[in-house]
Amino acid sequence: MNRKPKILAFAGSIREGSYNKKLIQAAVNGAKKAGAEVTLIDIKDYPLPVYDGDIEEQQGLPENAMKLKKLMWEHDGFLIASPEYNSSISGALKNLIDWTTRQATKDEVYLSCYIDKVAAIMSASPGGLGGIRGLVHLRSILENIYTLVLPTQKTISNAQEAFDSEGNLKNETHAKEVENIGNKLAIMIDKLKSS
Amino acid sequence: MNRKPKILAFAGSIREGSYNKKLIQAAVNGAKKAGAEVTLIDIKDYPLPVYDGDIEEQQGLPENAMKLKKLMWEHDGFLIASPEYNSSISGALKNLIDWTTRQATKDEVYLSCYIDKVAAIMSASPGGLGGIRGLVHLRSILENIYTLVLPTQKTISNAQEAFDSEGNLKNETHAKEVENIGNKLAIMIDKLKSS
Amino acid sequence: MNRKPKILAFAGSIREGSYNKKLIQAAVNGAKKAGAEVTLIDIKDYPLPVYDGDIEEQQGLPENAMKLKKLMWEHDGFLIASPEYNSSISGALKNLIDWTTRQATKDEVYLSCYIDKVAAIMSASPGGLGGIRGLVHLRSILENIYTLVLPTQKTISNAQEAFDSEGNLKNETHAKEVENIGNKLAIMIDKLKSS
Amino acid sequence: MNRKPKILAFAGSIREGSYNKKLIQAAVNGAKKAGAEVTLIDIKDYPLPVYDGDIEEQQGLPENAMKLKKLMWEHDGFLIASPEYNSSISGALKNLIDWTTRQATKDEVYLSCYIDKVAAIMSASPGGLGGIRGLVHLRSILENIYTLVLPTQKTISNAQEAFDSEGNLKNETHAKEVENIGNKLAIMIDKLKSS
Repeated sequence: MNRKPKILAFAGSIREGSYNKKLIQAAVNGAKKAGAEVTLIDIKDYPLPVYDGDIEEQQGLPENAMKLKKLMWEHDGFLIASPEYNSSISGALKNLIDWTTRQATKDEVYLSCYIDKVAAIMSASPGGLGGIRGLVHLRSILENIYTLVLPTQKTISNAQEAFDSEGNLKNETHAKEVENIGNKLAIMIDKLKSS
Repeated sequence: MNRKPKILAFAGSIREGSYNKKLIQAAVNGAKKAGAEVTLIDIKDYPLPVYDGDIEEQQGLPENAMKLKKLMWEHDGFLIASPEYNSSISGALKNLIDWTTRQATKDEVYLSCYIDKVAAIMSASPGGLGGIRGLVHLRSILENIYTLVLPTQKTISNAQEAFDSEGNLKNETHAKEVENIGNKLAIMIDKLKSS
Repeated sequence: MNRKPKILAFAGSIREGSYNKKLIQAAVNGAKKAGAEVTLIDIKDYPLPVYDGDIEEQQGLPENAMKLKKLMWEHDGFLIASPEYNSSISGALKNLIDWTTRQATKDEVYLSCYIDKVAAIMSASPGGLGGIRGLVHLRSILENIYTLVLPTQKTISNAQEAFDSEGNLKNETHAKEVENIGNKLAIMIDKLKSS
Repeated sequence: MNRKPKILAFAGSIREGSYNKKLIQAAVNGAKKAGAEVTLIDIKDYPLPVYDGDIEEQQGLPENAMKLKKLMWEHDGFLIASPEYNSSISGALKNLIDWTTRQATKDEVYLSCYIDKVAAIMSASPGGLGGIRGLVHLRSILENIYTLVLPTQKTISNAQEAFDSEGNLKNETHAKEVENIGNKLAIMIDKLKSS
């Protein structure tokens, strides 16, 4: 295609010092090096109420859900760094997915912000397993809403020791692997959107 | 044991007309028939912000998270009817678990409201699969926080047609199976708490 | 690319009258219509011992494992119709994967028959859930060995009534959906292999 | 109850030097200390063909499947050390489950060797994740066939360095945790079978 692959990147955590907010940065760099245009957002800037079908019926989607959906529509794929809470994804990320999978209007094709998108996922966690169980759930959830998920993923265990004071991964091999995920996503989108 | 098994029951959905709020009632009846003392709550009455580690650090647990933890401590087990959103549990239920698994104080034994508890789970869903994929995730999450989950579970598909105007399951076999889950949970708790 | 997409297709069941052997045929037709060259095999023709590390060390890979690996190397992707046994994939399919993921020689790049391949999966099952839990495991296993799995999948429930005497799906919508999976796989491979 | 809890223990691997065969021993010791009668078997002694519905229909269950079913019927619970192959359980263990879940005769209550049994699971693996993904699948499979699985489990990563020359876990904390799993299983069975 003529235009660059457009990727929306975010961490599934709200808190300021989140390891996953650091992690996503490395993947963003990789995607940019591969020629992608990347929009990195902080989900803290899009606060949502906990999903409640009655709110939806009475008031429609919250403004921030609409803003997130708009961002998703405008991009070809997603880079997601997902913290593991209780062996699954965060309530914050699940809630964001629950809202953005709802139709903006009755005319919106169901799941239109997710269908035919491509995603790459990763996780940093203080535990020894690096968030692998959260990624199992996230992968499953995304594919169920018709987003293609790259097989290559990366988990960073003992996250409290993994980043330097500037937020970069200390381990260079890990840093390259995460960058490579962004890179692969950009290339994959480029291939799928061209032809 | 001398005292009755105490069970906390709730649906993982907030909205008023939730199928899972109807479903949980049948299981509650079964548990009561087996001699359990059951507290049925509506999670709508315990609104929580989306979990954010910064809120926790600055303000501690929200009052409703503390109320929920107190309820959990006072009961031996849980009956949970869990809607399936996007092939997993609801953001609402995940968020409730994320908050209640946090320590009330530094002295609280980590996961103390969940350890050695016993749970039984079920699901009603408008789709043809009845929420089975949500239960796979829920089971996995609960066991990872050391709650024993009964193998017997029940899914109700096509939930929009499954209940009569009084909220009872029309299909009597299904109704008995759901009641039986409450029954089994009460008996299991009784066995584990006695000796 | 100049050459056609090459797809290896098989069911994860050994028995003659397998519903999944019927199901795979519809997907194969779809892939062919989209221009793919499809090799449909019956895994019964490649009997393997149950994987045993000692056999591998003493005798290397069995001849049939080598034949299967060769077939995999020669194709760009896989169409798999997977029966559900005990809420997971069949022992037969797992065993086939266990053998073909082993290195033919020390020089073989680990997982080389799976890396960068693309797969599409489907399931037919006599139960009401159509094998959805088996597909959850299969998807997870394939992606872990670096095979990209299309989000679109199809489950056929009550399989004993789903096929006519010639082995075709009676329900035309279902037949088209399964055909469409083969079609999508061929197109995806074409996009990824070109450029 | 008057009689001791009876536990069947095995590793899900066939090869002689299997880490999981070493691991299971520690759990067996724990179960014995808690008063259980434990039968430790090597699944290598019960070779089975890969499950094929045609073999079953024509010849019934293989002799070794019948022997395994008999062992399962005679015991109250299972201790299983499960290797992880390709992010799931071994083909060998899946195949064993596939055969033993089939009915010995038309009169056998379906799944009778698994219903109301109690299991505890663990895993040793050369990788950094210790086999956690295999345990996720195993837990799910066992519960789906109505076996209660203890929430407490243990994974041993870097298994090639974890055992001493006599096959004992070098790390004493890990050794105690594994022993404790056997212990907990014996106690749980005792509680559930008494009353």
